[in-house]
Amino acid sequence: MIFIGIITALIACCIDIAIEEGSSAKFAFLKEQVDKCVAEECLVYPFLYWVLLNVVPVVIGSALVVYIEPVAAGSGIPQVKCYLNGVKVPRIVRIKTLIVKAVGVTCSVIGGLAVGKEGPMIHSGAVVAAGISQGKSTTFRRDFNIFKYFREDHEKRDFVSGGAAAGVAAAFGAPVGGVLFSLEEGASFWNQSLTWRIFFGSMISTFTLNVVLSTYHGRPGELTFAGLLNFGKFDNTSYDFRELPVFIVMGCLGGLSGALFNYLNFKLTVFRIRYITKKYVKVLETVVVAACTATVGMGMILYLNDCKPLGEDPTKYPIQMYCADGQYSAVGSIWFQTPEASVRSLFHDPPGSHKLTSILIFFTFYFFLSCWTYGLSVSSGLFIPSLLTGAAWGRVVGMGMEELFPGQTWVDPGKYALIGAAAQLGGVVRMTISLTVILIEATGNLTLGLPLMVTLLTAKWVGDYFNEGIYDTHIQLMGVPILGWEPPPLSHNIYATEVMSCPVVTFNSVETVGKIADVLTNETYNGFPVVDPPLCPDGRNFGTFRGLILRSQLIVVLQHKLYNETAESWSHKGFTIKYFRDAYPRYPTIQQVHVSDEERHFTVDLRPIMNPAPYTCLHNASLPRLFRLFRGLGLRHLVIVNDNNEVVGMVTRKDLARYR
Amino acid sequence: MIFIGIITALIACCIDIAIEEGSSAKFAFLKEQVDKCVAEECLVYPFLYWVLLNVVPVVIGSALVVYIEPVAAGSGIPQVKCYLNGVKVPRIVRIKTLIVKAVGVTCSVIGGLAVGKEGPMIHSGAVVAAGISQGKSTTFRRDFNIFKYFREDHEKRDFVSGGAAAGVAAAFGAPVGGVLFSLEEGASFWNQSLTWRIFFGSMISTFTLNVVLSTYHGRPGELTFAGLLNFGKFDNTSYDFRELPVFIVMGCLGGLSGALFNYLNFKLTVFRIRYITKKYVKVLETVVVAACTATVGMGMILYLNDCKPLGEDPTKYPIQMYCADGQYSAVGSIWFQTPEASVRSLFHDPPGSHKLTSILIFFTFYFFLSCWTYGLSVSSGLFIPSLLTGAAWGRVVGMGMEELFPGQTWVDPGKYALIGAAAQLGGVVRMTISLTVILIEATGNLTLGLPLMVTLLTAKWVGDYFNEGIYDTHIQLMGVPILGWEPPPLSHNIYATEVMSCPVVTFNSVETVGKIADVLTNETYNGFPVVDPPLCPDGRNFGTFRGLILRSQLIVVLQHKLYNETAESWSHKGFTIKYFRDAYPRYPTIQQVHVSDEERHFTVDLRPIMNPAPYTCLHNASLPRLFRLFRGLGLRHLVIVNDNNEVVGMVTRKDLARYR
Ligand SMILES: Nc1ncnc2c1ncn2[C@@H]1O[C@H](COP(=O)(O)OP(=O)(O)OP(=O)(O)O)[C@@H](O)[C@H]1O
Ligand SMILES: Nc1ncnc2c1ncn2[C@@H]1O[C@H](COP(=O)(O)OP(=O)(O)OP(=O)(O)O)[C@@H](O)[C@H]1O
Ligand SMILES: [Mg+2]
Ligand SMILES: [Mg+2]
Repeated sequence: MIFIGIITALIACCIDIAIEEGSSAKFAFLKEQVDKCVAEECLVYPFLYWVLLNVVPVVIGSALVVYIEPVAAGSGIPQVKCYLNGVKVPRIVRIKTLIVKAVGVTCSVIGGLAVGKEGPMIHSGAVVAAGISQGKSTTFRRDFNIFKYFREDHEKRDFVSGGAAAGVAAAFGAPVGGVLFSLEEGASFWNQSLTWRIFFGSMISTFTLNVVLSTYHGRPGELTFAGLLNFGKFDNTSYDFRELPVFIVMGCLGGLSGALFNYLNFKLTVFRIRYITKKYVKVLETVVVAACTATVGMGMILYLNDCKPLGEDPTKYPIQMYCADGQYSAVGSIWFQTPEASVRSLFHDPPGSHKLTSILIFFTFYFFLSCWTYGLSVSSGLFIPSLLTGAAWGRVVGMGMEELFPGQTWVDPGKYALIGAAAQLGGVVRMTISLTVILIEATGNLTLGLPLMVTLLTAKWVGDYFNEGIYDTHIQLMGVPILGWEPPPLSHNIYATEVMSCPVVTFNSVETVGKIADVLTNETYNGFPVVDPPLCPDGRNFGTFRGLILRSQLIVVLQHKLYNETAESWSHKGFTIKYFRDAYPRYPTIQQVHVSDEERHFTVDLRPIMNPAPYTCLHNASLPRLFRLFRGLGLRHLVIVNDNNEVVGMVTRKDLARYR
Repeated sequence: MIFIGIITALIACCIDIAIEEGSSAKFAFLKEQVDKCVAEECLVYPFLYWVLLNVVPVVIGSALVVYIEPVAAGSGIPQVKCYLNGVKVPRIVRIKTLIVKAVGVTCSVIGGLAVGKEGPMIHSGAVVAAGISQGKSTTFRRDFNIFKYFREDHEKRDFVSGGAAAGVAAAFGAPVGGVLFSLEEGASFWNQSLTWRIFFGSMISTFTLNVVLSTYHGRPGELTFAGLLNFGKFDNTSYDFRELPVFIVMGCLGGLSGALFNYLNFKLTVFRIRYITKKYVKVLETVVVAACTATVGMGMILYLNDCKPLGEDPTKYPIQMYCADGQYSAVGSIWFQTPEASVRSLFHDPPGSHKLTSILIFFTFYFFLSCWTYGLSVSSGLFIPSLLTGAAWGRVVGMGMEELFPGQTWVDPGKYALIGAAAQLGGVVRMTISLTVILIEATGNLTLGLPLMVTLLTAKWVGDYFNEGIYDTHIQLMGVPILGWEPPPLSHNIYATEVMSCPVVTFNSVETVGKIADVLTNETYNGFPVVDPPLCPDGRNFGTFRGLILRSQLIVVLQHKLYNETAESWSHKGFTIKYFRDAYPRYPTIQQVHVSDEERHFTVDLRPIMNPAPYTCLHNASLPRLFRLFRGLGLRHLVIVNDNNEVVGMVTRKDLARYR
């Protein structure tokens, strides 16, 4: 866990520093161009530069994702969620994915898309954790016995949830929030000793990040860079009892707007799945989005005349545009920053820094831009864009409040921006407690805890009335058989016999190699019950249940030719475990294993290899009961037996996921 | 959940206000007496008054507990933990327990024992939740079908974990901490929709408490009383990078001292279980402790000459003793306060308020006093005494640091007192993430988050090296078969056949009333497999497994005479569910049911009543597998069957708990 924490934090630092440097260089160059051109009326050039500087990194990032590792697209949170739920998503925790993700997200943030780097950080943490659990399990754990083998997957999952927590901790400087995140989104079976190990990992991660970033920024030992996402401190904010209704209303708004976001994004994703299938079209789409982003930005800077005097806290790259000397364009400053810095300025700019219309227009465009962006074939996070959208309308609400209650000390548009950001994000992702804690930790302010809770809970309620959270929507669209938290309602009268698949493809406890090879080639199933052949092979050929064998095990058997010419005693046992462990987790496919014609008549005794006592269920068990077994124990295959312990059916997650 | 939150908070308010008023009256009276007597050299009288004022409430509280509801003794957290683990502790969630607990804890705090009111608050929350779930399940859920009935226990457990969370939220003003508490200590199967409902309940609870207490203290609408335990805000505390080693060392100290505490308390409890069995002896012991507390306090006030000028923030009842005019005795002020207020003053008194020796002596006495007190037959919490002990030695460390690094801004004894308190409490109860969050929320300070985490994790590590947490120790001593978080190590080679009890007492699917009555009278088991009788009743009389029936169900059958003279068709079905639901959860015992001689020959068909598809396991399953089934699904009974689905054994929690 220490390593997970440290490595995750280091990756986070690299991404952060790369983005920081890249964006600085880009914006410095653009500012120079703009400043030069305003006088000479040649704004087309900086615009073109801008488009170019957006498109080039985005193309790199997008090409990486599309051509090298498509699974690295998006934020990775839905995939990690599936993984923690017990569903295998292929290649999701490979090192290659990590690299593509890290480079991809750097490119897309530098490319100025409406994305954040937080979601990918979480995914990176998960990959790191999986990698470490791997190394550990093959290096240190040789001596463990065969049951360990069956539990490998389970264990790896625990590590991954730790990694996700470390990722959150690094992304937001929120160790507690990280633990809660991996709890709220992932774990089904929670475990105290695991909890505090995860907690420790998260803490280490935050701490490492802090040390490295403080050093990078030239202030070693100060520990001021708690997370990647630094919202800055809210110092003297307090709230009034009477504001709570306002927060509730804002929560509703957030829920509504989040639900709208999810709905639009859902339609868009369906459209993408249907029509945007060619690889180059995917890259092209990202190019269009990147160019649009630049265009919208330029358009707003040009047509919104929102000049501010250069105050005490000007942005890093104030552009003057058509403003008078000593002033800068407020809209320009929002666009000439990473989205994250924009969130920060919306939170902390003193009252009156922004014009109502410019913020409203910004909100509208940004809402649609970010909706369009999420789901593109780039690595991208959703947190920052949602926060930014929310902060924009929150600030509008704050301005409204200022009008309504002039001169009240507790009316602070920054606070409303924060609440709005929380409401929007809550409406989109529908997390409650973890988001509360993450936001509290990221802002370093506890007094706003209650308002945040109220807002987030309301946003969740309102949003859930309309549709599911964005991650769940995407999981649905991925077609992954994920199980909910509760068995579907009204399912008490559905019995195992209706859910299960039958007839079942089974193996006899002593089976010929030929049959095994044939079945593996012809069927895609990953688990097969092993049965004693029925004594009288009549029509109803149910065999008595003996155990369960996995495709991967059978393949290792065939690969290493662990069979005898006759069904005699079989003495490889000591070696087999080693074979299985070495092969884990990348088994060859059946096509890669060659079985000669002669070998086809050999037999193999499956009994020493199979899992002799897997979970089974009687045919008259109800659906909720099956559900609980799968959910609570993270099963993949469940064999359904009848009263005589004969195999009558097979249930997998896919079968359960059909009932909703 | 709303109701749970509100009612828990209201109970918390009542307890708090009662304690506040009671203690004020007591200390005001004592102060008057002392002040009067110092001049007249008659300190014996105030001492006697003090003893009296300690003993009387304590006797009331203790007598209530001992004679009315012994299960209300202690903090209740171990019991709630057992309950959440799936073990039934009789009478733990009855209203009577709640009342005794609330009155008892008020008495013991007023009685000046070294106890806190936080643990009992958590228990109260749990009782409230159980009560509400009850009302709900019998009032609104009539129309649910029979499976609901089997899940009743499960559901109630969810409510109870919500109640415990609300209790923590009320006690510490820590809604997030409450959720984490019920997670870290209780839940085994975690559920997203449950989480946010619990979270909501906790929030409501904090909020209600806040409103009521603010109003009580005459400042409605200010929301300054976030929790019962108000540590006051730490405002301008920061820490330095180089302090982290100090925090780690303090964590070790806390772990050590916590382990010592647990060890002593363990020995003491064993002694108590063995020798202090008579009821009046128990009451007597509390009297002795109460008197001792007063004596120690008086002794310290008399012999420690620690005079302070009446500063800006004098305590409420400064006693002058032998000090010069305009001064007061610092030790006296610690004793003439509720322990909670003392914690607060140790945290916040300006540097130099206390003398080293007096704090050291106070620490020593208080450590042993609180150790002696926990486990007495009174309602008592452990949090505050541990915090106080820890704050005392933490302050000592702080003074040491002041000596070592004079003039450094970051050396603040109050901060060290907080860290010390955390270390001590962490060493005693061994919680990590929830305690971190609770302390952060209770102090309203986020900057000290990292030091707190470091300290608590170290304390847990060091402490776990020596023994278990105090709650687990007490659970062990209660003899409750609680299951750990992980299957015992090295248990992979233990199979179900070794764990299970056999022969099993079973019923045939159509059974005579006489046999049922006899078995219920003679055996104490609560669950019986229902079998088809073996066709040839030879020696190995294994019947084929059909279902599982509970003792409670059989009793209802006998009580309502739901049987026929012959084994004919049986048409009561509609009514039976109602019978079962009405009886829940207080079933009569078998002795209360009369079965006439004639009726003994009647038969009853158990098939419509039994649970037709309970979880079963094959006889060759390994212990970890059984363990996961129990832990993940919260089972009580697991039937072990052989390959032919014949019942060969029975496993309950007790059987599993034997393996550690
Ligand atoms: N051995 C089998 N015989 C017959 N049907 C099976 C067998 N294994 C799985 N099925 C059925 O095939 C369908 C698809 O199964 P699925 O892809 O979920 O299983 P799997 O590939 O074995 O498991 P997983 O996807 O977890 O690797 C399901 O309806 C399932 O019930
Ligand atoms: N029907 C039964 N036949 C034989 N042995 C049983 C039966 N039920 C329980 N036992 C055994 O009796 C011992 C004590 O059981 P225990 O008190 O845990 O069971 P219970 O009272 O049925 O369940 P619970 O305590 O959860 O109400 C255990 O070793 C258990 O295996
Ligand atoms: Mg499959
Ligand atoms: Mg029992």
